[in-house]
Amino acid sequence: MESNRRNFLRNAFIGTAGMAAIPSILSANEFDYQSVPKIKEKLLKQGDVILFQGDSITDAGRDKEGKSANNQRALGSGYAFLAAANILKKFAEKDLKIYNKGISGNKVFQLAERWQTDCIDLNPSVLSILIGVNDYWHKHDGKYDGTVAIYENDFRALLKRTKAALPNVKLVICEPFALLGCKAVDQTWFPEFDGYRIVAKKMADEFETIFIPYHEIFAKAAKAVPPTYWTGDGVHPSIAGAELMSEAWLKYVFGK
Amino acid sequence: MESNRRNFLRNAFIGTAGMAAIPSILSANEFDYQSVPKIKEKLLKQGDVILFQGDSITDAGRDKEGKSANNQRALGSGYAFLAAANILKKFAEKDLKIYNKGISGNKVFQLAERWQTDCIDLNPSVLSILIGVNDYWHKHDGKYDGTVAIYENDFRALLKRTKAALPNVKLVICEPFALLGCKAVDQTWFPEFDGYRIVAKKMADEFETIFIPYHEIFAKAAKAVPPTYWTGDGVHPSIAGAELMSEAWLKYVFGK
Repeated sequence: MESNRRNFLRNAFIGTAGMAAIPSILSANEFDYQSVPKIKEKLLKQGDVILFQGDSITDAGRDKEGKSANNQRALGSGYAFLAAANILKKFAEKDLKIYNKGISGNKVFQLAERWQTDCIDLNPSVLSILIGVNDYWHKHDGKYDGTVAIYENDFRALLKRTKAALPNVKLVICEPFALLGCKAVDQTWFPEFDGYRIVAKKMADEFETIFIPYHEIFAKAAKAVPPTYWTGDGVHPSIAGAELMSEAWLKYVFGK
Repeated sequence: MESNRRNFLRNAFIGTAGMAAIPSILSANEFDYQSVPKIKEKLLKQGDVILFQGDSITDAGRDKEGKSANNQRALGSGYAFLAAANILKKFAEKDLKIYNKGISGNKVFQLAERWQTDCIDLNPSVLSILIGVNDYWHKHDGKYDGTVAIYENDFRALLKRTKAALPNVKLVICEPFALLGCKAVDQTWFPEFDGYRIVAKKMADEFETIFIPYHEIFAKAAKAVPPTYWTGDGVHPSIAGAELMSEAWLKYVFGK
């Protein structure tokens, strides 16, 4: 046990003072989540659709064939599944339909290509979007020639199109995040990656959506235990990281 | 929306008075969970192992190859995964190792056959066991000639062996459950199936373990919305049912 403890601490960024902070990572009033607009339970109608959209972080190994609403395999094994489980139990009497349509590797323009089928046709009442890390990551790795301006223009166009087709949809924009000290993320990502985070917040402000500051949440969690506890490569969450995301999503969206 | 609502209500056992009860299915003081012995956070040591054992309800489609501690696929997509996610986030600084070793179709004697490898060798600090529905179900269907006395004797022997090998292990015994009004469970199950539930409670009392009254929890939940919302066939939980189980497990075991 003691050697496990030493190995664990050897990798920690900070000492025991920080470790005491874990239980309160998402405690009341953290990140001022109380002040953001939230979706009241009474706004959810019988049979309403909740849709999670994004890239591999949302996808989380989901089965893309067969039945897809409220289906364990179709929801993957990430934050969308964890949040769906909580919502389906908490609001059991609403008979909600929850979908995960995240696809690994997607950038904003790839969401746009499949938006009619994988978003608008599903007629979601609540739509959560987590997109942006690949818009930067694939450029960083020389596999894509996008820019932060393209990300912004594409994202704004997608949101305008969404609001035109679904005027009553409640939008949730999730901040893209990247954790230093993990396999795939080093100092070369910054400050350029921060530009993508800023655009996501700007979109949330322009379209008056709920915004979930995942980068800030993960950065705080990574001060308490090593960042690799929350995400192996700095981008894809562990089980603990997915739970952190799910709990934040539920607090920011439903205020619980 | 309105026709969805009607379809949903058509299948409901009770009306709107019961539906208002959902948010409190697991609220404070339900099922007297406050009075049962709980595992205090301070009893969890760095690197401690938590093991979920059982049949298909625990298994929940887990990947049985490869890395198995704190691994999304190895934990399946049921209550064990949902509870593990919560625990790994809540007690991040403990660096716990969580395993799911449930196997579909298992009865008590089949747990015993693989107990050395799949339990004792893992040296769990917390061991949760959910077993018994197949001990009855396979008999009911003529595929097994066990009795409730065999279930009791086998279960007691397994627990004695466990306590001998792991004197400090904290045990959690989960009540087997079966919901009427679902595909696989009809009146022919009762009262005989209740005998297996009573044995599980008796074992919890004899070995002074935490006991999770899942049958009672599901029965209460099924008064609020149709039982098929929680389990399609009466035995295997839906996502909402798995979350109900996970939340109950966390409340009964950690008191939160």
